[in-house]
Amino acid sequence: MAAPTKVTGCTVRDIRFPTSLQKDGSDAMNVAPDYSCAYVVLSTDTGLEGHGITFTVGKGNEIVCQAVRVLSKLVVGQDLTNIYSDFGTFWRSLTSEDQMRWLGPEKGVMHLAVASLVNGLWDLWAKMEGKPLWKLLVDMEPEKLVSTIDFRYISDALTREEAIEMLKKARPGKEEREKEMQEKGYPSYTTSCGWLGYDDDKIKRLCKEALAEGITRFKAKVGADLEDDKRRCRLLREIIGPDNMLLVDANQRWEVQEAIAWMKELADCKITWIEEPTSPDDVLGHLQIAQALKPLGMGVATGEQCQNRVLFKQFLQSGAMQFCQIDACRLGGVSECVAVILMANKFGVPVCPHGGGVGLCELIQHLSLFDYIAVSASLDNRMTEYLDHLHEHFKNPCIMNRGCYMPPQAPGYSVDMKEASLDDHEWPRGKVWQDLIAQGVYTVD
Amino acid sequence: MAAPTKVTGCTVRDIRFPTSLQKDGSDAMNVAPDYSCAYVVLSTDTGLEGHGITFTVGKGNEIVCQAVRVLSKLVVGQDLTNIYSDFGTFWRSLTSEDQMRWLGPEKGVMHLAVASLVNGLWDLWAKMEGKPLWKLLVDMEPEKLVSTIDFRYISDALTREEAIEMLKKARPGKEEREKEMQEKGYPSYTTSCGWLGYDDDKIKRLCKEALAEGITRFKAKVGADLEDDKRRCRLLREIIGPDNMLLVDANQRWEVQEAIAWMKELADCKITWIEEPTSPDDVLGHLQIAQALKPLGMGVATGEQCQNRVLFKQFLQSGAMQFCQIDACRLGGVSECVAVILMANKFGVPVCPHGGGVGLCELIQHLSLFDYIAVSASLDNRMTEYLDHLHEHFKNPCIMNRGCYMPPQAPGYSVDMKEASLDDHEWPRGKVWQDLIAQGVYTVD
Repeated sequence: MAAPTKVTGCTVRDIRFPTSLQKDGSDAMNVAPDYSCAYVVLSTDTGLEGHGITFTVGKGNEIVCQAVRVLSKLVVGQDLTNIYSDFGTFWRSLTSEDQMRWLGPEKGVMHLAVASLVNGLWDLWAKMEGKPLWKLLVDMEPEKLVSTIDFRYISDALTREEAIEMLKKARPGKEEREKEMQEKGYPSYTTSCGWLGYDDDKIKRLCKEALAEGITRFKAKVGADLEDDKRRCRLLREIIGPDNMLLVDANQRWEVQEAIAWMKELADCKITWIEEPTSPDDVLGHLQIAQALKPLGMGVATGEQCQNRVLFKQFLQSGAMQFCQIDACRLGGVSECVAVILMANKFGVPVCPHGGGVGLCELIQHLSLFDYIAVSASLDNRMTEYLDHLHEHFKNPCIMNRGCYMPPQAPGYSVDMKEASLDDHEWPRGKVWQDLIAQGVYTVD
Repeated sequence: MAAPTKVTGCTVRDIRFPTSLQKDGSDAMNVAPDYSCAYVVLSTDTGLEGHGITFTVGKGNEIVCQAVRVLSKLVVGQDLTNIYSDFGTFWRSLTSEDQMRWLGPEKGVMHLAVASLVNGLWDLWAKMEGKPLWKLLVDMEPEKLVSTIDFRYISDALTREEAIEMLKKARPGKEEREKEMQEKGYPSYTTSCGWLGYDDDKIKRLCKEALAEGITRFKAKVGADLEDDKRRCRLLREIIGPDNMLLVDANQRWEVQEAIAWMKELADCKITWIEEPTSPDDVLGHLQIAQALKPLGMGVATGEQCQNRVLFKQFLQSGAMQFCQIDACRLGGVSECVAVILMANKFGVPVCPHGGGVGLCELIQHLSLFDYIAVSASLDNRMTEYLDHLHEHFKNPCIMNRGCYMPPQAPGYSVDMKEASLDDHEWPRGKVWQDLIAQGVYTVD
């Protein structure tokens, strides 16, 4: 088949799953999420398609879809050679359009929409090259890869030249690391056992199942009630034993001083990180927390709601973040994720991407594989979040083996969902939603 | 008339002005803005209406309007006594709705939409009390006023108790300051003379007219071309004389080091502030710039794209901001503006609100009057932006007297636009747009 030359169209669908009915994903701030996405299909002149998503937790997903429709006018009709020959400049044309920039800039709804389109373009590129996305990234010449990044506002932390140098320095051992990944996979941690909505028996059962599967890293939600958190963290530590890793996540529940006081109470449970202790916008607040908790052996993790590379830059420069949790859909797609992975490497901070929701696990495995093989060359303190929800809707779901993500082999970014899943879950006309609406469980305004 | 008890409905209109045709508002990043707003009308059971706006620069205004429609479901049907008896909690219900919070949180499109609704509720409240908004704020008991604020994520910088104390401490002299304002007005500066799109003759003519009107503070746009900036700043300094104030604004054009180097070249023009030297998200970058420029007598101003109180908190805590430019529509309406005004006062940073666009001048005069009369009790280094565009569309446009904003007297927040202006400028069906579309000047996608 000839290579496509042009983006000829863009469709976006509002896809939602009624996950709030099971309390999957319940935490101190997100009581009842319905995992959702704006599902983008970029069509081309040869029929090859690029699929991209951005993730939300339900209500307002239609606002993101509308933003995608508006932004897609900047993509449809564009020449693919132009896009891929200088992707960084094209990326900036999406994030810095003269009038729409006011609506962000580079944050919130508009940036989520940019992510879905940029992810779609990367998926298309990988399919054009016949490679899974991680392999496309790993094989790309440093100069080429770096040309996909917009360095605006980060050049004081990382220049284009430093980025190229860093990638070149990581070349030795690439083949070995790729082979190692193909054999063993990339380590994960699981959040599936520790949701706030689960009772103790369910936590015990899920942990034991996970341990039996070879999983050694566990995350629990905290922040709603201190006494309950103490009890649950001690329970978890008891079940998983003294040597496995325990992480906790407050989902932005606390004020700065409150976070410090609360976490001191949990320090006896040997916790590796406290995730999102406070507002995702508060670099200086996280820095205070990090400094207070360091003597107790706890680090600060954050990033799933960190709006763009400029915030990550400050978290990394200041030492406010010991674990860098990029989100494949909150950042402006693969290009900005690569920028943050490179910055994190410069500052010696491990990248542990945010998984879960719908499709995030499918996406982030590519980014972690790239990070290990081509950038950091290290697995120290690195692990990628894994949750066992909603994978059945994907054509190429992620494959786990004893707690590790096995490298995807199909060309693309593993975004493609099954047609039937898309049809059934399209809000509000899909069959799943029509049934729930008919039963009075959901209403359409 | 009996007081309204309930919000019974909400409409939002997409209002745009073809300002790009005149190059009003052109700067280094916003080449051709079409000043626009989401215009919100909250109706009540007595017929009294609350009007609120949020400002954008054109494209994508429909996305904000849709976000308003979605969020308005949280407002319509609500009891007004409940809202106003604990406005801070109601505010949080809008910004932290379980599922929609993911789309921000508290930033970008969603927060702009929140602003229009919150501004509408404050306008309604002031109309219910029969007072202009500034007077409502000034007369309110400290405990009551502080109850309108959500202190989440700022309590490490300012507690509720400190805020109440600060307002009580500012009580002496309030009557005198109110009288002074009624007589002399609040000082402004003008940006109308220094747009990048204007030629030298136009700049000269506009400056001389402004000087004749008693204006003593002038702002120019910089950042596109260094030699041109040098020439224009020297021209401005020459026209306005050595004692009047010259401010410059780069609209986020630079990298951190570039900002420092560029501004050093302009230091001989006696510039009071450099506004938005780099990304509005970059607290640590602004801090570096502020430290480098302090010895040259220049301060850093920023805030019109500062997303929420959490960012302002960090700018203020760290010393990265010497002038605090709140935006009445980017922050989540009056409640969050009051929070930032109180924080700025604690850190001794003057508040100089962002004006211009459409309606911003009408709104910010209320906030500055409140700041002077009830909080800071100082006019040192304080001035509110003024631009002479689009005021003719408002029922109660701001009134200037020798470069000062004269206190509005009509009940409300001065938001109300004329019906004919709304009808003519509604995108894309209004007469103004239909004509331009027929002429082929604009196209509707």
